[in-house]
Amino acid sequence: MNAPQHPIHPSPIDIAQQLAQTFATTAAERDKQGGNPKHERDLIRQSGLLSLSIPKEFGGQGADWNTIFKTIQSIANVDSSLAHVYGFHHLLIATVQLFSQKQQYQTWFEQTAQNNLFWGNTLNPLDQRTTATKMNENEYIFHGDKSFCSGSMDSDILLCSGFNDAGKLLIGVIPTKREGVSFLGDWNNMGQRQTDSGTSHFEQVKIHQSELLLNPGPLSTPYSSLRPLIAQLIFVHLFLGVAEGAFDVAKQTVQTQKAWSKSLAEHAVNDPFTQKHFAEFYVQLESVRLLAQKAIDTLQWAWDIGEALNAEQRGQVSIAIATAKIAATHTSLFITQNIFQVMGARATTAKLNLDRFWRNVRTQTLHDPIDYKYQEVGEWVLTAKVPDPSFYS
Amino acid sequence: MNAPQHPIHPSPIDIAQQLAQTFATTAAERDKQGGNPKHERDLIRQSGLLSLSIPKEFGGQGADWNTIFKTIQSIANVDSSLAHVYGFHHLLIATVQLFSQKQQYQTWFEQTAQNNLFWGNTLNPLDQRTTATKMNENEYIFHGDKSFCSGSMDSDILLCSGFNDAGKLLIGVIPTKREGVSFLGDWNNMGQRQTDSGTSHFEQVKIHQSELLLNPGPLSTPYSSLRPLIAQLIFVHLFLGVAEGAFDVAKQTVQTQKAWSKSLAEHAVNDPFTQKHFAEFYVQLESVRLLAQKAIDTLQWAWDIGEALNAEQRGQVSIAIATAKIAATHTSLFITQNIFQVMGARATTAKLNLDRFWRNVRTQTLHDPIDYKYQEVGEWVLTAKVPDPSFYS
Amino acid sequence: MNAPQHPIHPSPIDIAQQLAQTFATTAAERDKQGGNPKHERDLIRQSGLLSLSIPKEFGGQGADWNTIFKTIQSIANVDSSLAHVYGFHHLLIATVQLFSQKQQYQTWFEQTAQNNLFWGNTLNPLDQRTTATKMNENEYIFHGDKSFCSGSMDSDILLCSGFNDAGKLLIGVIPTKREGVSFLGDWNNMGQRQTDSGTSHFEQVKIHQSELLLNPGPLSTPYSSLRPLIAQLIFVHLFLGVAEGAFDVAKQTVQTQKAWSKSLAEHAVNDPFTQKHFAEFYVQLESVRLLAQKAIDTLQWAWDIGEALNAEQRGQVSIAIATAKIAATHTSLFITQNIFQVMGARATTAKLNLDRFWRNVRTQTLHDPIDYKYQEVGEWVLTAKVPDPSFYS
Amino acid sequence: MNAPQHPIHPSPIDIAQQLAQTFATTAAERDKQGGNPKHERDLIRQSGLLSLSIPKEFGGQGADWNTIFKTIQSIANVDSSLAHVYGFHHLLIATVQLFSQKQQYQTWFEQTAQNNLFWGNTLNPLDQRTTATKMNENEYIFHGDKSFCSGSMDSDILLCSGFNDAGKLLIGVIPTKREGVSFLGDWNNMGQRQTDSGTSHFEQVKIHQSELLLNPGPLSTPYSSLRPLIAQLIFVHLFLGVAEGAFDVAKQTVQTQKAWSKSLAEHAVNDPFTQKHFAEFYVQLESVRLLAQKAIDTLQWAWDIGEALNAEQRGQVSIAIATAKIAATHTSLFITQNIFQVMGARATTAKLNLDRFWRNVRTQTLHDPIDYKYQEVGEWVLTAKVPDPSFYS
Repeated sequence: MNAPQHPIHPSPIDIAQQLAQTFATTAAERDKQGGNPKHERDLIRQSGLLSLSIPKEFGGQGADWNTIFKTIQSIANVDSSLAHVYGFHHLLIATVQLFSQKQQYQTWFEQTAQNNLFWGNTLNPLDQRTTATKMNENEYIFHGDKSFCSGSMDSDILLCSGFNDAGKLLIGVIPTKREGVSFLGDWNNMGQRQTDSGTSHFEQVKIHQSELLLNPGPLSTPYSSLRPLIAQLIFVHLFLGVAEGAFDVAKQTVQTQKAWSKSLAEHAVNDPFTQKHFAEFYVQLESVRLLAQKAIDTLQWAWDIGEALNAEQRGQVSIAIATAKIAATHTSLFITQNIFQVMGARATTAKLNLDRFWRNVRTQTLHDPIDYKYQEVGEWVLTAKVPDPSFYS
Repeated sequence: MNAPQHPIHPSPIDIAQQLAQTFATTAAERDKQGGNPKHERDLIRQSGLLSLSIPKEFGGQGADWNTIFKTIQSIANVDSSLAHVYGFHHLLIATVQLFSQKQQYQTWFEQTAQNNLFWGNTLNPLDQRTTATKMNENEYIFHGDKSFCSGSMDSDILLCSGFNDAGKLLIGVIPTKREGVSFLGDWNNMGQRQTDSGTSHFEQVKIHQSELLLNPGPLSTPYSSLRPLIAQLIFVHLFLGVAEGAFDVAKQTVQTQKAWSKSLAEHAVNDPFTQKHFAEFYVQLESVRLLAQKAIDTLQWAWDIGEALNAEQRGQVSIAIATAKIAATHTSLFITQNIFQVMGARATTAKLNLDRFWRNVRTQTLHDPIDYKYQEVGEWVLTAKVPDPSFYS
Repeated sequence: MNAPQHPIHPSPIDIAQQLAQTFATTAAERDKQGGNPKHERDLIRQSGLLSLSIPKEFGGQGADWNTIFKTIQSIANVDSSLAHVYGFHHLLIATVQLFSQKQQYQTWFEQTAQNNLFWGNTLNPLDQRTTATKMNENEYIFHGDKSFCSGSMDSDILLCSGFNDAGKLLIGVIPTKREGVSFLGDWNNMGQRQTDSGTSHFEQVKIHQSELLLNPGPLSTPYSSLRPLIAQLIFVHLFLGVAEGAFDVAKQTVQTQKAWSKSLAEHAVNDPFTQKHFAEFYVQLESVRLLAQKAIDTLQWAWDIGEALNAEQRGQVSIAIATAKIAATHTSLFITQNIFQVMGARATTAKLNLDRFWRNVRTQTLHDPIDYKYQEVGEWVLTAKVPDPSFYS
Repeated sequence: MNAPQHPIHPSPIDIAQQLAQTFATTAAERDKQGGNPKHERDLIRQSGLLSLSIPKEFGGQGADWNTIFKTIQSIANVDSSLAHVYGFHHLLIATVQLFSQKQQYQTWFEQTAQNNLFWGNTLNPLDQRTTATKMNENEYIFHGDKSFCSGSMDSDILLCSGFNDAGKLLIGVIPTKREGVSFLGDWNNMGQRQTDSGTSHFEQVKIHQSELLLNPGPLSTPYSSLRPLIAQLIFVHLFLGVAEGAFDVAKQTVQTQKAWSKSLAEHAVNDPFTQKHFAEFYVQLESVRLLAQKAIDTLQWAWDIGEALNAEQRGQVSIAIATAKIAATHTSLFITQNIFQVMGARATTAKLNLDRFWRNVRTQTLHDPIDYKYQEVGEWVLTAKVPDPSFYS
């Protein structure tokens, strides 16, 4: 309950908080610009945080999931776009661990750790426009478009995907600069504006057999099926981080204000209605923090079990994360909407750009419909059936 | 319960709906631009609707409040900035009727009706930077800045205000082009972006004694104190109009979608969760429509009583409007936030700019804190004390 | 907005309010007792209100639906059990008008008006244990049990029902004292405790062909299908009446209390949190009152159309009533639960029995699942399909 | 995440769960009876759980707070009256530890551990009718009434209290059978009906100086001020326990039901609305479980610091417990009200008495107004001021 003494060497979370301080100074302006935050992505590269999830045997830091998620959350406190692409970098590293074997990913990981490579994503299983055609025993051609490719632009390594003739999803790992790969830069949405979640185009791109993640492949075992759950838990920490960031801004704003003329109090911090609003915010934030922590702990437990993880155990992770996601979705929308009620009309000036908190969570919470997270949890409560693994559950 | 046959001559509400159709085609784009919607304001001038509230004896249409509010609501369905400045035009005309005598405003009204003059507002009683200095028996000098001057730019007639040495608020009516009047064009907020609610500057502006509204003057009688209530009821119709507009967009979007893959239904319109969300939206909208209608009827009743209106009667209007405002605030925020949950991720594209519904009501609902509307209604319920007239109650 | 002058002869609503005053003195105690409120039912008989819905041509008062529902609501303010059986009396009279022809019901109505007969109900279409066997051209035998028979005990005339061999529901009207009819008196539930909603037993009961409602019969036309909608609107007025009653008790209680020691106010009526709670109650009550009024008006419009009513028009009534029911359900549960938060611990004494408000609405709101009222309204919003007529829609 | 193997000797929590199974069979019936649950209180005595909180040096079990609260929660799953008096027993033992010195309470504790003595409470600081008059150096006379004395009847040892001439609260510990002590048995409230929370009467009761808790005395240090926080955390576990109990009943009920006829599913467990309701219940329960756990951990940390605890540290405990209480209050009311919506009308039969869940939490949540828990938390968020210690904070 007392803060621990800071170590001499900054911890990953310290580093993330320092990055956040830097990002905070330009976050409002960069949200308006949208586009690729090249400068900030390079600061992430230089921070060393990209090797957090790389096992120590490959030169990484071998951090546990708790550390990784807390760095994501810290960045999301001020900039959920950067937190998103940073979190997805670690998701992609986990993906390779879950979908393939050590001998295959060893080199990628060593290079990532050594050179602070940033991984990007062109894996959207709902968009089947990219085809994967086998040319010979060693070579495939990926061709076509793919939407919602967060973090693909300015990446160094790319997780790519295509559907073969049989309708099977093939996933590969290639250098982003591979010939034929391009990005349309067409992401322009109301929130998460610097995630580069636009369209990628693969023009007859050659993929070697050795670059495909086939053993065990996507979602083929309970263990490999942890992948979408890690993605969902990243979202939880984005929502939580944004909600905390909005809460902090509101608190600082109110601390300088006088109460409304009709109030029984002189200062806004003593106004009963204002106090109750902040208590509601705080209680919800605390709940989400604890649910997120339980979800992390459950994930770590399952991750440590490894390939022996069974479907029921995987289901426990799924439910813990779905539970946290439901609460985080509700809370982040509630807080980012209602901070304005305590701050008042002057908080709406475009200069502060405080609506970005709401726009960011409103956008990201739509990744997959929250109603069906409720449905999964409710079905499990009533029938003990755990959710079927999919790219959304 | 069946719609009445349309008359041959378009009604004011028909005209407002036609304007709305035109405004709708550019509303998303104009929201991004912000600034002064000169073209659209001229279309309002040409529509003839600016004379709705002018009594027939001065060449106006002498419309009842119901007609006026319904035209505001119709425009707010697609563009709450234009609805705001249009609504405030009628508020300013009512202000003159409430704060002064017929012989004083006769000419202004005749000119307004004849030339479709647009009235603008520089009356913000919380900003006391503009001073009103009496130079001689017939002349005052107004000097200084005033913030939140909605609709002032591109207006033809201006309601202006200043505080004299004794701290008394003086309100005048002048041609907008009066020498010394300028507008900083500094309104740039997250919502209501084309209301021109920026700062006005009065540089030693001469105001004639005959241009001041002194008999009975601002908020000097229960009847004259209807003025802020009319403003509040305009807000109600902005919120309701925006909520209806958002609801319509969401409905049309969902009607074209397939249900989520886990749904028991094939089409989104048959998905149980989607259906329940829309029912929640609809029930709330219906409630607000009926509360708004009751508030209009109560206002009209009080308006028709005229100067004989007593404090208790004025209080009934205040409570009816506060009640409608509480519900409209809650509902408009609820719907504009939750339409995204039924429409899904693709609705977040900046091209559609659907977050403008939320940004507009989130901004406008902060005009004065809704917590103190609750407080007023609750105090009245418990003690029978009606709210003290002020520029916010 | 000013209360009209009271007429010399008390109006039906005056009479209902006087009855309510009498019922109020014993309502808490009678709730604990449960069982049949014979004394109070006789007071209703004596009041003359039982002939409200009987057309004037048969000696009744020919009241409109507005008057009938307002009398139900007035009684529900203090006793929702009595309001229920009183409301169902009028429902049963309407049922006969909707399911049969004037020549058939003329005598029943004349007797009802003349002798203040109380009608009771053994019509529960979900319970199919009572069989209807045709013995010869003129006679049927009804035999078996039927649950949820509100108001059957101490009734004078009984609407009874049975299923024939073909699974068709037959509905008849008989004197309650018909040989073979008995009531088990087994209603003992957590709410609505004096509605006598227990089991009826028919032991080989003879029903004449002329007592069956066959032309047009149950739910056979859009017009006859108004019957379940009238039942639903009675529920709305029970919920609203209870919510108003609970609100009044809470208000009177709080008016005598000091504020909590930490409050900025001395008296509870000036406590900001208490004020806000009451405002929330009031705004919701006002909404439900207006939605209920709109539903009444829509029903009256359809009722006046008569047999020519088409399915679409009947659907409009269905939606208006479902909308009011959703709001009334939510509001009545909200208020009856939260009055305790403003009244404090001493309000929980069994002597006051204030939990009866919540128990009554919690019980009655389960008549049919509110989730499927949402579903119906949502489906109509999205597809324009009106609810299929049934005994619940 | 896997349940640990059960030890050979039953743990305190096992014992509490076994007690709960026994209590469950009569809980519905005993709720109706009210009065003193002598038989069940003796079962608690025999279970050995009364010595849980007695330190081992005095022959007790020296259990940590986590164990104590979990046993309270287990009993509250089926009977929150017994959980209340059982929890208050441990509160009173803690009170003595916090308000006095080891040499004073050593004998009481040894006797309690040896003979399974049940402690009862007549400490209600808001009711000042009992006077404490100093007769001589060694003797006081306590005289008068005291309301809300939970668990006093059938207790073996009594914490009693009176106000002296100077208005100071004096607290003593006496055998319940001390001459002059009587209980009116007048507790008859809508919930918590077997807590014996009625009035005690002290008729010139002699209290020895050595029986008074004077060093350090009530709320005299941050450490001694933990006492009301422990009481509040007992309430949290009552609310949580009841909510879990109601949830379990609802789940079991729904698992046997068919879905409503309009549902897309056949069985209730597959109905989308039912599933979503249960997910909402579950997410809230999980949140409260985690907030309660954090509150326990914070309390244990402070408890272990002992007399050195400072005001700021005590404040952290206060906030953690207030946070849990806000969530537990909301959740327990939400779940106990809404289980009916998923179970349907047949769940309202008095035989099941399922409204007792709601009546119990509705009653107990009014101990002190939750609005002022919000107020305390909000004030702390905004100003960093921790709540002033009192018998309610």
